[in-house]
Amino acid sequence: NIRNLAMEKVASTVMFPCKYTTSGCSASLLHTEKVEHEESCEFRPYSCPCPGASCKWQGSLEQVMSHLLHVHKSITTLQGEDIVFLATDINLPGAVDWVMMQSCFGHHFMLILEKQEKYDGHQQFFAIVQLIGSRKQAENFAYRLELNGHRRRLTWEATPRSIHEGVASAINNSDCLVFDTSIAQLFADNGNLGINVTISMV
Amino acid sequence: NIRNLAMEKVASTVMFPCKYTTSGCSASLLHTEKVEHEESCEFRPYSCPCPGASCKWQGSLEQVMSHLLHVHKSITTLQGEDIVFLATDINLPGAVDWVMMQSCFGHHFMLILEKQEKYDGHQQFFAIVQLIGSRKQAENFAYRLELNGHRRRLTWEATPRSIHEGVASAINNSDCLVFDTSIAQLFADNGNLGINVTISMV
Ligand SMILES: [Zn+2]
Ligand SMILES: [Zn+2]
Ligand SMILES: [Zn+2]
Ligand SMILES: [Zn+2]
Repeated sequence: NIRNLAMEKVASTVMFPCKYTTSGCSASLLHTEKVEHEESCEFRPYSCPCPGASCKWQGSLEQVMSHLLHVHKSITTLQGEDIVFLATDINLPGAVDWVMMQSCFGHHFMLILEKQEKYDGHQQFFAIVQLIGSRKQAENFAYRLELNGHRRRLTWEATPRSIHEGVASAINNSDCLVFDTSIAQLFADNGNLGINVTISMV
Repeated sequence: NIRNLAMEKVASTVMFPCKYTTSGCSASLLHTEKVEHEESCEFRPYSCPCPGASCKWQGSLEQVMSHLLHVHKSITTLQGEDIVFLATDINLPGAVDWVMMQSCFGHHFMLILEKQEKYDGHQQFFAIVQLIGSRKQAENFAYRLELNGHRRRLTWEATPRSIHEGVASAINNSDCLVFDTSIAQLFADNGNLGINVTISMV
């Protein structure tokens, strides 16, 4: 466990190219900055934005919508800034995902409701919106998710995620609309839960 | 395990007086209705509304405020329909309660934030408002709790509970503002969490 201080000093000043150089990135980085840059590098390919890691597709941002339309045909799209995301059969056991697309402001947004058991014996729902677009584009929007009924309202407002970063870390940090099964029951009607979704520009 | 149908038939038609008869209730009830009535009987004495069952005080609604002022002197009161409930040191370990009073519309409301581990290894915060008043009076109001910051907002709107029913069952059913420790971190500033509380008449 002897540190080679000379080598460390060299490594801390040498610049490395980003691994997406061949895709067009011209960034040159210190060893210590490389991982973080590549994680958010705009030349990193986009992965399929569908929740769950079952689809391994990767490509450019321009190809994402045609991938969804051809490979994930079952996803419904609604037009408008203010729509209802209806999740049916929320009482189905196990981990389940509900997905919908919303089109407005010339952009496509993916709405995701996920039922998960992050903690043993405690099922929770996580709802979130991601833009089919870059992080920079996502900064221009805000979304609101709202559960309504029986003199109660639960609302979450935030900036949409970009599909480039994805929703997994946000769900993991509860940085989204989170509610448990008893709240879901309170707002559901016959096992179906309607979530009001409103997108706006900021 | 032989059922005495004759006795059951008698029991199902005999009327019993409410156990709060001596306090003024004149209700007469079937055996099957008695428990539920007594639970919500307006002549049932009020218990101390402070969270946690440590104070065993009981009395009439008219005596509650003077009990709080004399025995629970440390509770702060703020005037106004729209105030900030500041919970300090939310990172303190274990189960913790924060309590405050809000006075408006000629009524007193108790604001409660509770940190609990309902599920093993998963700490959650529960925030709720109860009226120092009867269930009927509580129906005339609505409250809104709001966490704000970093381009995010979490809002819960509902009818205040009456201190006659208390908040334990609502917290148990998550029928209140619920958020976990990572969301608390997101909105907290230096370990202190400000919750915007707005009371309105409906
Ligand atoms: Zn790069
Ligand atoms: Zn795919
Ligand atoms: Zn009674
Ligand atoms: Zn007391």
